Amino acid sequence: MDWVSIANDRLLVIDLAPAADGAARQVVIELMPAPWSQGWVGNIRKLAAAHWWDGTAITRVQDGYVVQWGDPDAEDKAKARPLPSGLLSVSQSAYTLTAGAAPPLEGPRIADGIYAAGAQFYQGWPIAFAAGDKPETWPVHCYGTVGVGRDMPPDSGTGAELYAVIGDAPRQLDRNIAVVGRVISGMEWLSSLPRGQGPMGFYQQAAERTPILRVRLGSEVPGLPVWQYLSTASASFARYADARANRRDPFYIRPAGGVDICNVPVPIRRKP
Amino acid sequence: MDWVSIANDRLLVIDLAPAADGAARQVVIELMPAPWSQGWVGNIRKLAAAHWWDGTAITRVQDGYVVQWGDPDAEDKAKARPLPSGLLSVSQSAYTLTAGAAPPLEGPRIADGIYAAGAQFYQGWPIAFAAGDKPETWPVHCYGTVGVGRDMPPDSGTGAELYAVIGDAPRQLDRNIAVVGRVISGMEWLSSLPRGQGPMGFYQQAAERTPILRVRLGSEVPGLPVWQYLSTASASFARYADARANRRDPFYIRPAGGVDICNVPVPIRRKP
Repeated sequence: MDWVSIANDRLLVIDLAPAADGAARQVVIELMPAPWSQGWVGNIRKLAAAHWWDGTAITRVQDGYVVQWGDPDAEDKAKARPLPSGLLSVSQSAYTLTAGAAPPLEGPRIADGIYAAGAQFYQGWPIAFAAGDKPETWPVHCYGTVGVGRDMPPDSGTGAELYAVIGDAPRQLDRNIAVVGRVISGMEWLSSLPRGQGPMGFYQQAAERTPILRVRLGSEVPGLPVWQYLSTASASFARYADARANRRDPFYIRPAGGVDICNVPVPIRRKP
Repeated sequence: MDWVSIANDRLLVIDLAPAADGAARQVVIELMPAPWSQGWVGNIRKLAAAHWWDGTAITRVQDGYVVQWGDPDAEDKAKARPLPSGLLSVSQSAYTLTAGAAPPLEGPRIADGIYAAGAQFYQGWPIAFAAGDKPETWPVHCYGTVGVGRDMPPDSGTGAELYAVIGDAPRQLDRNIAVVGRVISGMEWLSSLPRGQGPMGFYQQAAERTPILRVRLGSEVPGLPVWQYLSTASASFARYADARANRRDPFYIRPAGGVDICNVPVPIRRKP
């Protein structure tokens, strides 16, 4: 009873071009639940509904950092793919929510101390919080986290350009960029892509880019399996988090006695 | 003057079979400097001098965790490749050194609090320390760290089976396994390998394994470039570490004000 099904309209399904050996490469992303980052999540829903990403590509793979995808011609006004109408411009203030604007967090409290006062969970998601009278809360950057690429102005990301983290958790991005999702299936298709040789891991030749065949909301994908997360309010999850901090399997001779938030990935499964 | 050259007999050079497009795939590992982990590092030198790894393979790629290599038949006594004579069996007590047995650490002190009391540096390497009267010190597990695979008994790793970290820093391994090196060049050849589909990311078919053509100490490789690290005792490094904790480039609107030890990778370069 501790497993919670994720509504398929909260999933984003990416079909990459098949691998060299013909294998299908499908990546499934769970979008951030309300109330965090919903301006960008709404844009992403519009882009998916418009089939806007079909025919775009993976443009950047920077080792130990991120894979990024979108319109390869986005910077060239003459060639850029027009964005659908109705996308919001979201303010940098939406990178965080004050505790008053956010629901109560749940589950075990995880120590932080460097990037946040601590972290807890909300509906299966790790959420960091700051100390103080009006503490902020925000979703954290871990392995597999999906965020909104942007230019220098902090409100310049629409959601058309997305990235997924493929290396050590880049927690310095917290509160500086919008977290909108996480990869829940097919992560290996992103993390094993050839690294780009240009600055910041951008590919230098168009032929190096991996084509994106289509991106759909899960509600548009017939036969998609039901995905579930382990309720972060459950006793099972509390035991899991404790086991991550105190590894009791016989391999470990010195349990750490603590764990960082990105080292407690919330268990996700296909519904049996 | 802040760049320090690494003696080429402290480098381990791995030549993988060429990529599908014919590209050479060379990985360079810097071995851990004395006095940490030297029992295993000595074994690794003997294995390399014996050309023991030539014809072995990458046997395991677990997404977000490690790439591992060694003798694919190690578990089959009839087929296992004999180890060279003179390898040491190293006790688990060597996973750490007491502060008295270790040289003074140098450079900026980096907060930790979860996996260690804190961390500092030694000759270009991140070293964590525990609190207390007889504090321990140990090298930490970050992206690109190389360690010694072992079975359940903590002294069972010889160094013949090695792994490199390809995901979020698995700090829970600290003090549980020997850190013997780090990848300083060619990391992308390891991190982009196809993930194994068997338990723990082991490949299920021999044909999936990436062959290792040869492994040599750098002193046996003609024409190897000189590699250098930024002295962790230098003022330049202290400024770099501060800049990692307080990102001042215009992209960042909220510098974190702190940084974890794995997010301060020591700069490495080819000698200009």
